[in-house]
Amino acid sequence: MNGAQALIRTLANCGVDICFMNPGTSEMHFVAALDSVPDVRAVLALFEGVATGAADGYARIAGRPAATLLHLGPGMGNGWANLHNARRGHVPVVNIVGDHATYHRKFDAPLTSDIAGLANAVSGWVRSSDSPETLPDDAADAVAAAQGPPGRVATLILPADASWSESHGPAEPRTPAATIEPDAAQLADATDALAGDGASALLVGGRVLGTERGLVAAARVATATGAKLFAETFPTRLRRGAGLPTIERLGYLAEFAQMQLDGIRHLVVIDTTSPVSFFAYPGKPSDLVPEGCDVIRFDPERSDPVDVLEALADRLGAPDEVERQASFRPDVGDGPLTADSLANALGALLPEDAIVSDESNTSGLAMSATTAGCPPHDWLTLTGGSIGQGLPVATGAALAAPERPVIALESDGSAMYTIQSLWTQAREHSNVTTILLNNRSYSILNLELSRVGAEEPGPVAQSMLDLSDPPLDFTAMARGLGVAASKAVTVAEFAEQFRAALAEPGPHLIQVDLDPLF
Amino acid sequence: MNGAQALIRTLANCGVDICFMNPGTSEMHFVAALDSVPDVRAVLALFEGVATGAADGYARIAGRPAATLLHLGPGMGNGWANLHNARRGHVPVVNIVGDHATYHRKFDAPLTSDIAGLANAVSGWVRSSDSPETLPDDAADAVAAAQGPPGRVATLILPADASWSESHGPAEPRTPAATIEPDAAQLADATDALAGDGASALLVGGRVLGTERGLVAAARVATATGAKLFAETFPTRLRRGAGLPTIERLGYLAEFAQMQLDGIRHLVVIDTTSPVSFFAYPGKPSDLVPEGCDVIRFDPERSDPVDVLEALADRLGAPDEVERQASFRPDVGDGPLTADSLANALGALLPEDAIVSDESNTSGLAMSATTAGCPPHDWLTLTGGSIGQGLPVATGAALAAPERPVIALESDGSAMYTIQSLWTQAREHSNVTTILLNNRSYSILNLELSRVGAEEPGPVAQSMLDLSDPPLDFTAMARGLGVAASKAVTVAEFAEQFRAALAEPGPHLIQVDLDPLF
Repeated sequence: MNGAQALIRTLANCGVDICFMNPGTSEMHFVAALDSVPDVRAVLALFEGVATGAADGYARIAGRPAATLLHLGPGMGNGWANLHNARRGHVPVVNIVGDHATYHRKFDAPLTSDIAGLANAVSGWVRSSDSPETLPDDAADAVAAAQGPPGRVATLILPADASWSESHGPAEPRTPAATIEPDAAQLADATDALAGDGASALLVGGRVLGTERGLVAAARVATATGAKLFAETFPTRLRRGAGLPTIERLGYLAEFAQMQLDGIRHLVVIDTTSPVSFFAYPGKPSDLVPEGCDVIRFDPERSDPVDVLEALADRLGAPDEVERQASFRPDVGDGPLTADSLANALGALLPEDAIVSDESNTSGLAMSATTAGCPPHDWLTLTGGSIGQGLPVATGAALAAPERPVIALESDGSAMYTIQSLWTQAREHSNVTTILLNNRSYSILNLELSRVGAEEPGPVAQSMLDLSDPPLDFTAMARGLGVAASKAVTVAEFAEQFRAALAEPGPHLIQVDLDPLF
Repeated sequence: MNGAQALIRTLANCGVDICFMNPGTSEMHFVAALDSVPDVRAVLALFEGVATGAADGYARIAGRPAATLLHLGPGMGNGWANLHNARRGHVPVVNIVGDHATYHRKFDAPLTSDIAGLANAVSGWVRSSDSPETLPDDAADAVAAAQGPPGRVATLILPADASWSESHGPAEPRTPAATIEPDAAQLADATDALAGDGASALLVGGRVLGTERGLVAAARVATATGAKLFAETFPTRLRRGAGLPTIERLGYLAEFAQMQLDGIRHLVVIDTTSPVSFFAYPGKPSDLVPEGCDVIRFDPERSDPVDVLEALADRLGAPDEVERQASFRPDVGDGPLTADSLANALGALLPEDAIVSDESNTSGLAMSATTAGCPPHDWLTLTGGSIGQGLPVATGAALAAPERPVIALESDGSAMYTIQSLWTQAREHSNVTTILLNNRSYSILNLELSRVGAEEPGPVAQSMLDLSDPPLDFTAMARGLGVAASKAVTVAEFAEQFRAALAEPGPHLIQVDLDPLF
């Protein structure tokens, strides 16, 4: 058994059952070893950003890490942006980056580069496995590091000679870290803050939002204390819909978040960060915590955040029952497609147990409201602000749950970073329906251009935000990538195409041309 | 004048007249400032790898650096791979990466990351310009650093507040570094080695290959000494064709390069590295210098390499006249398109003064020979081994020389990393003709899989190198991106479509389906 075989077998032993890859020469022994470990499914991507984003999407739904296989520094570079999103969402990824053989590095061949430097800038754990003897243990450590909690990107650098040399065989999984009981003193402080004088709020994120159990625990605490309850702005995975506790997301726009938090004197933060402005704006604050408000933040590396919430709820004598979202759907409607009519149609038609990968940006602002009362579903958002995540995350999510319908709400500008995702969806016969929101503009930047206080933009500046010349034809691109595609102009056309896409196996893309919001 | 305006004005002062960009919120003041400095042309890319690769291609042809504008760490990540190629080719790039405002960094907002870590792993110069007071000087320093010699990637990190704050105005260009005379002792050693006992070889690269002057100087030295003359395997820019000195490129395959260098006792290396294997292979050497051969390498940071060659030639009393490539073209031929018949047709039809961006990989192996006697042209190759360079480099080259025909020889697998390039070509009405060599395979990896000594590949391994399911339709993708496209099955169809593409303004793509070579 060579190192590569032992590595893949170790991944399987540790519960990693899929690897998204775009390999090169230095990874050929890994590729050759795939047939020997059928427990690990190999999924090819045409671009590394698809592989890393798909690993993110897979883990969000499967609840366990996927592996990647990238080709030296440039492969790591191409995958970097979606690893950044995974890092920000605390999503576990076992990120394997092939390298030259250890003895070859010093010759500085053309593909040599500082892989560790690249990896350190996005990973919570980095190790170069420079021997086939240590490789299996390194791999088991990588999986454990990725799993956290909280989840992180664990980068294992894999020199070619560690892959091709004889190995003593696979390693066993590491014992998971013991759960640490929530800190009693901090729990007491938090209950005092939430239930005491002055308006209070509970801001939750991360692992709290992905399960009914977490949502119920948060809602119990809010119900018992009268605290306002907020979800972080960009959840990794938000379980929502009819019958589930509702939770208001903190706004992306700092001004909006400030309104939501206005008057709060005590803020308890669980499994996310204290609220800050997404970007800096001249003369506007970065810290969105109201002046005079104290903040109690539970360390997400210490205790399980849902355990923390349940402990808080129990200390507060919170009721078991909490308010639940009523079931409702808007009418499907008719007439021409606009951002609003499309949002209504989506609310009317979103299938039960759907997974929504939301990179709809400005075009999708109404969709959260119109789908709130749909049957329970999962909503995956852009956790790290690096656009180009939606299509890869949908690709990975569909492989994690092949029986569930996956809907990608995808803006045109964002789609163009990782459009290659469609090919992997076609290759894997994935049930992903992409609703391509084509407003021919980086619309959000038109808004941001005015928000940053930039002067009246001239024609050159405006043209840098414009995607209309030439127009992008996503149906043509999708067909070129092997995905069935259509274009909808009216609500009726959209409804028909959406229903058909959901009914037929395999991926589909529906292009909807919209006016920019800004 | 704010910092962004002063920055762009400084770029113009320093001779940087174009900026390839994919901006975001933190770069909005830079974008807003573009209209105030029309001397710097703004070119939008849909993906940062297009912007960095286009900056590379622009500089290779224009002989001066282009700027980029990228959005924080993820933008830098997306642009990293083609910056790696530029670094390896010693191509100057002024790489500007927007960052959060300095005071906002500590809040660790979602898009915060270690930009400097990312930048250090690929740049020869990195500076964060944390004040509008220092920004113009920092920008002038960045241009000077990029220009070298030799050229390098100079990364200027640009916090948003440095852009939006008031500035004292632009900076003037730095005085270029004085030329250092070649080292007399090393010149003497080199002439002794080349003209002395035992077979000798002269290996040249970098700036030697891009001009007739450099090629003549190298050929004079070889002629005077009987040394074999080699060009590095992957030249940044190789001037070639009828009437120019010919130069044999060192082979990509280590076995082939070893044959070329067999028996050499003295090797003189100018403006490139001593020959090493591109990858490591079990049981095969990394260092391709024959045993017992001494190597004299001139430091490319010290003296101009063409000056070195001319000094060598003069010391050797080399003749002014050297052998020149005879003019010849193959017949255009007929019948079905194959790698060979396409190479012949290209040799028959390559227009005078063409710029060829060559990422043809295995499909293009015959093209170098069939175009050798064509009218003079420039050949740009994949300098750093990171595929996805060919289309962006062609995009930038066309903007540097809008009057010249640009031909992209592009393999299917490689094309899919940066296919978004086509949109920028359409938007800029660039005269790029892409010959898309579609063999439905990572063909080179089939070869490499056997070369690394991997066991007989199973079906999973084989499928990781296969691009046929679903088939990629590049004509559909091109049209989706606004580029006229056609497919050629026969030589006659190709010839007709190629002639038409060259005759009509704007970009075209011709898809040619070929069998994989391996």
